[in-house]
Amino acid sequence: MTENLRALLDPRSVAVIGASTAPGKPGGVLVRNITAGGFAGSVFPIHPKAASIQGLPCHPTIGAVPERVDLAFLVVRREAVRTAVQQCADAGVGAVVIITAGFGESDDWGREEQDAVASIVRASGMAAIGPNTIGLVSMGGSLRGSFVQFPHWHPGRTVLVAQSGVFAGAIADDEMRRGHHRLGLHASVAIGNRAGSTEDEFLARFGADPEVDVIGFYLESFADADAFLATAAEVKRTKPVVVLKSARTAKGAQAAASHTGSLAGDDAVLDQLMSQHGIVRAGDEEELLALLRAFAAETEPPGRRVGVVTFSGALGVLASDHVELEGLQLAGFREHSIAAYERILPTWQRPRNPVDLWPAVDIDPRQAVIDGLRIALADDDTDQVLGILLAVANADFADLRGEFQRLRAETPRKPLHLVIRGALSEEWSAAVDGLDISVHPSVRLAVKTMGATAWYEEVHRHVPNARSAVRDIA
Amino acid sequence: MTENLRALLDPRSVAVIGASTAPGKPGGVLVRNITAGGFAGSVFPIHPKAASIQGLPCHPTIGAVPERVDLAFLVVRREAVRTAVQQCADAGVGAVVIITAGFGESDDWGREEQDAVASIVRASGMAAIGPNTIGLVSMGGSLRGSFVQFPHWHPGRTVLVAQSGVFAGAIADDEMRRGHHRLGLHASVAIGNRAGSTEDEFLARFGADPEVDVIGFYLESFADADAFLATAAEVKRTKPVVVLKSARTAKGAQAAASHTGSLAGDDAVLDQLMSQHGIVRAGDEEELLALLRAFAAETEPPGRRVGVVTFSGALGVLASDHVELEGLQLAGFREHSIAAYERILPTWQRPRNPVDLWPAVDIDPRQAVIDGLRIALADDDTDQVLGILLAVANADFADLRGEFQRLRAETPRKPLHLVIRGALSEEWSAAVDGLDISVHPSVRLAVKTMGATAWYEEVHRHVPNARSAVRDIA
Repeated sequence: MTENLRALLDPRSVAVIGASTAPGKPGGVLVRNITAGGFAGSVFPIHPKAASIQGLPCHPTIGAVPERVDLAFLVVRREAVRTAVQQCADAGVGAVVIITAGFGESDDWGREEQDAVASIVRASGMAAIGPNTIGLVSMGGSLRGSFVQFPHWHPGRTVLVAQSGVFAGAIADDEMRRGHHRLGLHASVAIGNRAGSTEDEFLARFGADPEVDVIGFYLESFADADAFLATAAEVKRTKPVVVLKSARTAKGAQAAASHTGSLAGDDAVLDQLMSQHGIVRAGDEEELLALLRAFAAETEPPGRRVGVVTFSGALGVLASDHVELEGLQLAGFREHSIAAYERILPTWQRPRNPVDLWPAVDIDPRQAVIDGLRIALADDDTDQVLGILLAVANADFADLRGEFQRLRAETPRKPLHLVIRGALSEEWSAAVDGLDISVHPSVRLAVKTMGATAWYEEVHRHVPNARSAVRDIA
Repeated sequence: MTENLRALLDPRSVAVIGASTAPGKPGGVLVRNITAGGFAGSVFPIHPKAASIQGLPCHPTIGAVPERVDLAFLVVRREAVRTAVQQCADAGVGAVVIITAGFGESDDWGREEQDAVASIVRASGMAAIGPNTIGLVSMGGSLRGSFVQFPHWHPGRTVLVAQSGVFAGAIADDEMRRGHHRLGLHASVAIGNRAGSTEDEFLARFGADPEVDVIGFYLESFADADAFLATAAEVKRTKPVVVLKSARTAKGAQAAASHTGSLAGDDAVLDQLMSQHGIVRAGDEEELLALLRAFAAETEPPGRRVGVVTFSGALGVLASDHVELEGLQLAGFREHSIAAYERILPTWQRPRNPVDLWPAVDIDPRQAVIDGLRIALADDDTDQVLGILLAVANADFADLRGEFQRLRAETPRKPLHLVIRGALSEEWSAAVDGLDISVHPSVRLAVKTMGATAWYEEVHRHVPNARSAVRDIA
C-alpha cells in the first residue's frame, strides 16, 4: 500500500483513461493540464481509436501500454468506471484517480456500483482517490492532475487532503493567484467518495514524508476514526495536523450524506478525541488556511505569552479581549522594554502591553513601527508578537521591505502576526511577504491562530522548549 | 442640546482653532481636508498672526469671527485646550471637536484637565467630541473634518459612532478605497474621550434623523448605560442598532482604561441587557462591518428559513452546520422548486437544501448560477438565500452583471448573501455591486450575518411579518 501511495502521489508515469481528442472536454483538459504543468514522466492518453492526443501517442486500452503505469486517471462515463478500474488492476497499475461522479453521493445504482469498485480496488492493493474527485496536484506542483488549470503553483512543505473538490479546486486556485502570502503546497488531494485510500493512510504517508512539514485536512467523516486518531497521535510529535471537520450538526451531517455519501459521528465526542490526540481543529475554511499558513512559517513553536504592539487603541482592546478568551496571556514587558517604549513615545504615554504606539507615529513612523515591533520581539518575556498596524500615509516610511527584513533577521524564530488596516494595507502586506510573518484579515483570526499554535506546542510535541529551559537555568 | 448636535453634525460654518500656515502640520491638514472635501459653508481658520491660510482669511481668536460659528475644531497644544474651549463657549459656538490628545487616556494632569474641560462644555450646553479624537465626517461626506484625507467618500444611510479613531480613520479609509461593496456612510464620528456628547445622545439624534437607516457603534464603555439601553429600545423599532462592545474581559478593560480612560462593566450582564433592548451585538470589527452592510441593503427583514444554493458540496455542509449553530433553519424547498432544480441537474442528483449545483455547471453555467439562485429566491418557503459560488473559468458566463440585475429585479426584497471563491471572485463580486447583495469572505461570516438580521427582525420590530400573515390566511 505504501508503494502504491507513492505511485499515486509521486508517479513516474501516468495514463488518462477517457482522454479526449476535443481539447475542451474533461478528458482533453486533464491531458493538457498535466502536460502544461511540466510533469517529467510519461503521459499515456488512452483512447479506443485516436492515434494521438495533443501530440502524445495513444493506446486503445490501459493493458496495451508498453510500460508500467504508476497512476491512471479515469474520466469515463460512470457506467464504464467499474470495467476500467478492473483493467487497471489487471494491468498492474499502482494507483487510480476516479474523476467520474454519480456514485455514493447519488442514487442506489451509484452506491452499489461504488461498493463494487471499492472491492476491486481493495483486492488489487491499488491506491485510489474518488470516485467524484477533481483530482490532485502533487510533487510540489510538478503533477497537476486536476481539472483546474493552475498557471502558477506555489510549492511548499504543506499538504492538504480534502473530502471535497473545493479545496483542491477553487480555494487552491484563489490561493495560487494571491499577490502575496500564498500558502505553499507540496500536494493537494481531493479524496472524493473515498472508495480506495483513506485519510489515515494519507496522514501516515505524509507524516513520514521528509518533504512535508504541515498536514491539513477537510473531512466530513472518518473512514476509520480510530486509525486516524492513532496515526495523528504519532504524527503530531513532529508535524502539526490541522483538521477542519464539518458535518458537526444534524443538518450538516444530512448535507454531507448527499455530498460525499458519508455519515458523521457525534461532534462533541469527536472534538474531545481530536483534542486528546493532538489534532488542531479549525472552525471554518478561513481558519484552516490561516492555521496552515502560520504553521508553515519557519518560526519556533510559541508559548502563550503574547506581546501586542498596536497603532489603534480600539483594536488593541479587542486583541486583549481575544487573548484572554483564547487562553493566551498578555506578556508583562521587561523593564528595559518599557524604558525603550518610553523613549519613542511622547512623555505622557505610559507603555504597557498592549502598547499603543500611534502617538509615536508623528515623531518618526519608521521608528514607531519597526522599533516598536523590535522591542516586543526582543523581549524575553514574549513568546509571540501581534502587531496591529495602520498603513496610512502619515505612518508610511521608506524601504519598508528592507526594514522588515532586517527586523526579522534579528529574531527570525519568534512568531510575528500582523493585522494591517488602512489605504496602504495591500502594499505593506506585500512588503512583508516571504519573511515568515502571518498577516490576518481580523484581530479575531490572528489571535485564534496564535492560540492554536501555542496549544499545539504545549500539548503535543511533549518536548521541552529549549529557550525556556535555558532561561530557567540562567 | 439637540440644536447643538445639529451644529456638530450638520454645521453651516466651521472654525479651526490652531490652524497652521504649514500645510503638512495637523492644523494645516485639517483645513485642507475640510475645504477639499467640498464643505459648502464658511470655514474660518483661527491664527494669532497670519492674515490667511490656504486662501482663507484668518481671525486671531474665535471671538473675533464676525458671524456665528456652528462648529469649532481644536488643534492646539493640550495646555491650551481649556482656554480655547472656554473662548468657544463665550463666543456662542454650538459645538467643539477637541482633536488634541493627552487627557483622560494619559496622566494625572490630563485626567484633571479633562474634568475641567468637561465642566465648561456641560455648563455651556455645547455639543462636543474628544479630547483625543481624529474628528468626524458628516453630512454624507460634505464635511470631512478629519485628519484622514478621503479622496472619495461613498455616501449612504448608515452612521458609525466609535469610541476610537480607527473606525473613522483607517477602517473608513479601507472602506472608501474598496473597489466595490463599499459601506455608504452618512456620518462617521470618533467620540474620543467623551468629555462632551455621549453615545446615547448620538443614538437619539440619528434615531430621529430621516437620512439615517442603520446605526453602528464601537464602544469600550457606556457613559450612561441606562440611557443608551432605553434609547436603543425605542430606536430599534425603526432602525437596527449594531454595537461592537469591547473590553469584554479583565485584560480588555485594562487596555481600554489606557486607551480612552473608560471603565468597563460586567460583560455577561451587559450582553443580556443589550439583547433585551434589541441591540444587535457584533463580535469583532469584521462582523460589525458585515452587519452594517447587510442592514444597509434595501431588502425586507428576513425570517429564519434559509435556502442554500451551493457550487461546493463542502462549503454547503459547512453552511448547514453554521445555519444550525446560529439558530436558523434550512428551508424545505417547495415541490415546484425541487422539480425546477431537477430540470437543471443531471438525473441522478436529488435536489435538497442545500442544493449542490456544481454538476449543473457543465450543462450551462448561466442556467446553473442564475436559475439556481432564482429558484431559491422565488420559493415562498425561503426568507433569505445564501449562494456559495465558485467563480472559475468553466462556471463563467456572459453579461454577468446584467443577469444578476434581472435576477434581483424579480425578487428585490428577499435578502441574498453570497460567498464567492475562485480565480474570478473579484470580477464576480464587482459585477454584483450595488444590487443589494451582501458578499462575504467566509461561510461563517455570511451565516452569522443572516442570523443577526433574522434575530433583529423577530425580536425587535414587534410588527407581524406581512408576507407570512398573508400566507397563513391564504
